[in-house]
Amino acid sequence: MGYFDHVGTVKFEGKSSTNPLAFKFYNPDEIILGKTMREHLRFGVAYWHSFTGNGSDPFGAGTALRGWNELSGMELAKARVEACFELLNILDVDYFCFHDRDIAPEGDTLQETNRNLDEIVALIKQHMHSSGKKLLWNTANMFTNPRFVHGAATTSNADVFAYAAAQVKKALDHGKELGAENYVFWGGREGYESLLNTDLGLELDNLARFLQLAVDYAKEIGFDAQFLIEPKPKEPSKHQYDFDAATTLQFLQKYDLAKHFKLNLEANHATLAGHTFEHELRVARINGALGSIDANQGDLLLGWDTDEFPTDLYASTLAMYEILQNEGGIGRGGVNFDAKVRRTSFEPIDVVYAHINGMDAFARGLQVAAKLIEDRAFDNVIEERYASFTKGIGADIVSGKANFHTLEAYALQNNPITNKSGRVELLRSILNQYIINV
Amino acid sequence: MGYFDHVGTVKFEGKSSTNPLAFKFYNPDEIILGKTMREHLRFGVAYWHSFTGNGSDPFGAGTALRGWNELSGMELAKARVEACFELLNILDVDYFCFHDRDIAPEGDTLQETNRNLDEIVALIKQHMHSSGKKLLWNTANMFTNPRFVHGAATTSNADVFAYAAAQVKKALDHGKELGAENYVFWGGREGYESLLNTDLGLELDNLARFLQLAVDYAKEIGFDAQFLIEPKPKEPSKHQYDFDAATTLQFLQKYDLAKHFKLNLEANHATLAGHTFEHELRVARINGALGSIDANQGDLLLGWDTDEFPTDLYASTLAMYEILQNEGGIGRGGVNFDAKVRRTSFEPIDVVYAHINGMDAFARGLQVAAKLIEDRAFDNVIEERYASFTKGIGADIVSGKANFHTLEAYALQNNPITNKSGRVELLRSILNQYIINV
Amino acid sequence: MGYFDHVGTVKFEGKSSTNPLAFKFYNPDEIILGKTMREHLRFGVAYWHSFTGNGSDPFGAGTALRGWNELSGMELAKARVEACFELLNILDVDYFCFHDRDIAPEGDTLQETNRNLDEIVALIKQHMHSSGKKLLWNTANMFTNPRFVHGAATTSNADVFAYAAAQVKKALDHGKELGAENYVFWGGREGYESLLNTDLGLELDNLARFLQLAVDYAKEIGFDAQFLIEPKPKEPSKHQYDFDAATTLQFLQKYDLAKHFKLNLEANHATLAGHTFEHELRVARINGALGSIDANQGDLLLGWDTDEFPTDLYASTLAMYEILQNEGGIGRGGVNFDAKVRRTSFEPIDVVYAHINGMDAFARGLQVAAKLIEDRAFDNVIEERYASFTKGIGADIVSGKANFHTLEAYALQNNPITNKSGRVELLRSILNQYIINV
Amino acid sequence: MGYFDHVGTVKFEGKSSTNPLAFKFYNPDEIILGKTMREHLRFGVAYWHSFTGNGSDPFGAGTALRGWNELSGMELAKARVEACFELLNILDVDYFCFHDRDIAPEGDTLQETNRNLDEIVALIKQHMHSSGKKLLWNTANMFTNPRFVHGAATTSNADVFAYAAAQVKKALDHGKELGAENYVFWGGREGYESLLNTDLGLELDNLARFLQLAVDYAKEIGFDAQFLIEPKPKEPSKHQYDFDAATTLQFLQKYDLAKHFKLNLEANHATLAGHTFEHELRVARINGALGSIDANQGDLLLGWDTDEFPTDLYASTLAMYEILQNEGGIGRGGVNFDAKVRRTSFEPIDVVYAHINGMDAFARGLQVAAKLIEDRAFDNVIEERYASFTKGIGADIVSGKANFHTLEAYALQNNPITNKSGRVELLRSILNQYIINV
Repeated sequence: MGYFDHVGTVKFEGKSSTNPLAFKFYNPDEIILGKTMREHLRFGVAYWHSFTGNGSDPFGAGTALRGWNELSGMELAKARVEACFELLNILDVDYFCFHDRDIAPEGDTLQETNRNLDEIVALIKQHMHSSGKKLLWNTANMFTNPRFVHGAATTSNADVFAYAAAQVKKALDHGKELGAENYVFWGGREGYESLLNTDLGLELDNLARFLQLAVDYAKEIGFDAQFLIEPKPKEPSKHQYDFDAATTLQFLQKYDLAKHFKLNLEANHATLAGHTFEHELRVARINGALGSIDANQGDLLLGWDTDEFPTDLYASTLAMYEILQNEGGIGRGGVNFDAKVRRTSFEPIDVVYAHINGMDAFARGLQVAAKLIEDRAFDNVIEERYASFTKGIGADIVSGKANFHTLEAYALQNNPITNKSGRVELLRSILNQYIINV
Repeated sequence: MGYFDHVGTVKFEGKSSTNPLAFKFYNPDEIILGKTMREHLRFGVAYWHSFTGNGSDPFGAGTALRGWNELSGMELAKARVEACFELLNILDVDYFCFHDRDIAPEGDTLQETNRNLDEIVALIKQHMHSSGKKLLWNTANMFTNPRFVHGAATTSNADVFAYAAAQVKKALDHGKELGAENYVFWGGREGYESLLNTDLGLELDNLARFLQLAVDYAKEIGFDAQFLIEPKPKEPSKHQYDFDAATTLQFLQKYDLAKHFKLNLEANHATLAGHTFEHELRVARINGALGSIDANQGDLLLGWDTDEFPTDLYASTLAMYEILQNEGGIGRGGVNFDAKVRRTSFEPIDVVYAHINGMDAFARGLQVAAKLIEDRAFDNVIEERYASFTKGIGADIVSGKANFHTLEAYALQNNPITNKSGRVELLRSILNQYIINV
Repeated sequence: MGYFDHVGTVKFEGKSSTNPLAFKFYNPDEIILGKTMREHLRFGVAYWHSFTGNGSDPFGAGTALRGWNELSGMELAKARVEACFELLNILDVDYFCFHDRDIAPEGDTLQETNRNLDEIVALIKQHMHSSGKKLLWNTANMFTNPRFVHGAATTSNADVFAYAAAQVKKALDHGKELGAENYVFWGGREGYESLLNTDLGLELDNLARFLQLAVDYAKEIGFDAQFLIEPKPKEPSKHQYDFDAATTLQFLQKYDLAKHFKLNLEANHATLAGHTFEHELRVARINGALGSIDANQGDLLLGWDTDEFPTDLYASTLAMYEILQNEGGIGRGGVNFDAKVRRTSFEPIDVVYAHINGMDAFARGLQVAAKLIEDRAFDNVIEERYASFTKGIGADIVSGKANFHTLEAYALQNNPITNKSGRVELLRSILNQYIINV
Repeated sequence: MGYFDHVGTVKFEGKSSTNPLAFKFYNPDEIILGKTMREHLRFGVAYWHSFTGNGSDPFGAGTALRGWNELSGMELAKARVEACFELLNILDVDYFCFHDRDIAPEGDTLQETNRNLDEIVALIKQHMHSSGKKLLWNTANMFTNPRFVHGAATTSNADVFAYAAAQVKKALDHGKELGAENYVFWGGREGYESLLNTDLGLELDNLARFLQLAVDYAKEIGFDAQFLIEPKPKEPSKHQYDFDAATTLQFLQKYDLAKHFKLNLEANHATLAGHTFEHELRVARINGALGSIDANQGDLLLGWDTDEFPTDLYASTLAMYEILQNEGGIGRGGVNFDAKVRRTSFEPIDVVYAHINGMDAFARGLQVAAKLIEDRAFDNVIEERYASFTKGIGADIVSGKANFHTLEAYALQNNPITNKSGRVELLRSILNQYIINV
């Protein structure tokens, strides 16, 4: 091995370390609120960005210098497996995630493609066995190949729907084979280019049919992974059906699929939809649908998915704040780095630096969020703000005893009304103090 | 009277007229697809922009020159009623819409406020009777008064919830009194400033409670108007709960309220949420929730609600295309001009010009959309695009006969797959031709 | 030949034609304001989108079905030349534009790359000679190859600056050889990823040095093409130095380069910078810098360069309105379709449909704009609006006679001030009428 | 006094203080890079937000509870002066800033308006004398009054231009009277609503004329304040002429005004223009035009000027990083809180909390930025990145010795080229460490 400059395992050295190859905040064994950082965070490395991505963008060829650049076909696929487990070891990360097409090349036929996949899955299984690393989730790439030009489950072509079904069937088989804890659906081409040529009703009905068939098949084979849908509003499609958390939940409720799915939420997808990451997490949380996260960040002055490594401590703190308050925390999900090094950071070591950056940001976020919760820094404020709903007319509203007559009678004799400041600026000061002081 | 320069009723003069006070496209009696333009469009004038608005913005005082500028209190309120019916006559528009606080001033107590309202409602009723004009919808303004600083139904203060209930109770009474065809809920302050101090779950539960109480009360008094919710993603709140059509439907489904509500969709709110207007209309349509529209347009290079009069023929055509394809068209809803003249268009006559602009744009949109539908210009394309789902494996998918086994078997022997171009550019050329030629 | 389905030359058939392969508005010989449409518009086909582009995007492989897909190397390059001249004939378009790397493959060395280029340039010259087609502009692609990862003229690596100089030197030689009427600089990588590692001052100084060297060399070889800079605010870079028209002019003024350069303005780049296309054209026009345009359109709800074929008649009308009012019109520039068929429009014929769409949109825009000017539809309004600056105190202001003392004296006795409405809504109605009626 | 809850002077208590009325980071006497924090930061309080603003927004009335709410006219104006100096004392801030119309009410005539102003200016002068507080800058509000509906210096009405001149003349007199260190021009209405009715060339010429007259008058009266222009891209106008730093510099260069003006840059204006704050500061810095800053922050998911108190430590650090590297630091400028408490933070004490929040954020930013500079944390990286321009071919490029011939010769023999990673992720990790550790 040695795809990443023969770097040894990155260790925790504390916040003042000047060693670029050390963790400053991520201490896997540190206990926070009764669990280790490792258990809270369940970090995952994303196969596509770190082993398949090459730094290309719409205006430029790949820049990434990688030890496998000269390889191709199955040889390349095998090298990437080596590289993946090398990086997991360097980072001391337990999980990884992949699309089927990340790990093995397509063949001329679906049969050949599946044989390629089977071979690499077997190899990955060996590595998992020997290393103890685990599969956080797998998924099927149904957006890269030109056959999915009009969508997969929402294609206008029934042949493509059938192909997509076959592909997901195989991916579910492989997920089971590798003991995946989750299975993700991200519909990069499940959307439309123009309403002028789109039968929106049929496409959404078909998407629901597809998901139900996947649920049925997983049950049939006894694959008990948590199914996750990953919302994104746009890109590559002009409009994508799983626009954001609320839209996805609306769809799942309408088609009676909500009980089978949770959400895999991504920071950059949230901001593209006009939301903060913590908003999406909160929406999922209060609907019992917070499943897993794709940790990255966007550039809010850019209008596309930049998939940067997460470094903003506000975002990581508020994300962990939602996760810690979620029943069971992140549960079977994890913190998957759906993030890529910048095209200008093209050396292998940058991949290591970038993961350290992201892991430290989330570790710090975990520390800060845990302290905020322990101290009830915001909880006390919220409890007091809504106290009026725990007694008198407020309690009647919540319990269902009040109606428009009783409420009007109350209002007519209750003059004037006094509100209290929301104190946002003070709360933000407190957040800054916690980020620095914890 | 004479608030609008003693302009007589605006007449249709045809598309080549150079009379700025004539309709070029809106011919109320022209029959389109079996109904008159008047019946299709059911235009409404918005009280707040045309009679209460004064051209102020966050950086400047009102500029509007209006005949009622020297008045105040109930005298002002009465003058505005006169002005409203004058403008309806000038424009030959049948409907108007108002918030309770548009039509009458608040008093020192809710009792006094209600008395003011009762008096103006009685005056409006007289004018409706004598003129034959009708109330498209009314609504309660629960965002301007400081008491609603933290929301109305989603306030942190139970006293405010009670006040809001009393206010909506009165508004429902008035809606019934005036024979309103719809009643609208727009929650300008139903949202949050910061998640740091917000109990999102409680606020949404309370919103559902509030809406159910309104449904119950309307039933009790026999007010059978269509209830409508108007989505908007942000502004004034940082985040508003009724973000867009899908989010609002998710909420309604979750709380079992969907059967009682449809949507009142606004163009500028759609674009602020990152959607085209036709997208929002389509989403509502396929969910049986297209209730009414607020006709205006935003400036997509500006990030706030500009509420411009709708002039873009693409937008008006595609909006009418969705409405014509909606079962029952716009139904009990209408095309309400939630639009204001620019602050720089401050003369009374600009209000007339602006409505002519908007009515002509929608009339032209109706003509174009009707012809597109009659000619099946897009329908034939769509039918052919999705033809594979009407036979063979596609029919099996739609009927529920297919499963992952049969689909995989099909896919394994079906190589290669052939897709067809979506032809977006050609369809756009056709749309241009229709807009010019119809 | 036959890369485009053996389509014959597209003819003008008039606005009611239902022939998808006919022009509805573009009639090359129609006289408008004393010149033919052909002379006004000087349409160009963009080599990169129509012959080199393949429909790939960051999430998917190329979908384009093209007759040259099986070819590679110089054989591919030659096929594309054939295809280019075939399409120019089909569309009856006089001009084309290319980057050096569009037309010939890079070799292992710059020497080999240049030999490849020379060979294809010779082939293109033959085709130009036999067909009479002309080169609107050429340019150097200094953004695709990984060597330009940190920029070309603004790189942090002097070796790359030297390479870029060598590349532009060759491109200027080829421009002269082919009689290019313009030469374009678009700096896709001339910008920064992060200020943390960027010496902004040095990079901009070097950009100025580079441009001066290019000016010097062109003069030396007697290449008298108009030099053009094409602004774009971002993408691929996080920030690009030629952000918009004003920023580019600031740079040119600062480094005393303004006399040597005009601007090549693109609609989609304008909207990415937060401007309308007509704004950018107006800014260039009043600074004597309107050189040429890249005709396309963006999707204002998407945050990246979609490079759609221009179809919006408002945009094409207002663009042509600026061009017609520019001294000398588009001059030596032209209307280059820097536009690509959607990934879902992957058949060769879509390229033809798309250009017809764009040419018709601009032809209609030209007709409408010319009529607006002939009728002084807006000019009369403007003349009257600013009339106060032609007499009295206004004339003193413009002539420089007024000062703060005389102005104060005037203001103190001039009370109240009366303004007139800007009439925007009425002007928009008039614009709609012209678009439909002309 | 006692407009702010009789709060005593806020003291520095250190980063672990839980006293909401103490500074955690701002220690005015702490020495950083040889100067006190007080000298570096030169904080200013903005009259308009803190004493004139009332918490209203386009959808709601003012919510602010203030001790002067019952007053009006000159009595109100005088109370606000008291409140201003009270707050300056509470915060131990040395500077304040105002628009003419913030401090005194307009009368029926310009004469009366000026008398009101004179009276309050005299009162302010007394307070300044007794308290030692200073005027960072004053400015003229030429956007609120309806007379400026079409602009002030860029109006279409010469009478308005004259009025604006008279207003600025008075403001310059008052600036001199109070010893203002700067004078600011922010052109809220200097822009356009629509190009359809706008003579862009004349408006910009007039703007230049106006500024030159102001320069001339200031010279005449011996007012030696630094003149500053404050860019903003839009809002309230659809387009504002001083769009961003580069656009403003282009204008100043074109009209030969650059030597008389520097820029007053605002964070929220930067982001509305699509830039980071640090970008705008850097652009100003390398052009010798960094004059002063308006410290606030926007919400990048909202499209309007939210003017939030600055709390983001990344932004405050990178702003101070630019200022520290500017020759002379902030110079005669300062850090003015052009920021308002949220409408939901309506109690007087929130104004104090909010300023503490902002002052601490900038104090921390100053500490972090100073340490980054002392340690050359980024400077070393930059020096190494651009080292190739200090020798060999790079030195020839910079010195002007190289030309296209010598560069081509060099490039032809220099194969392959090797670039180095830009290391953005690592640099971001380092920034996080500094923010936490300093």
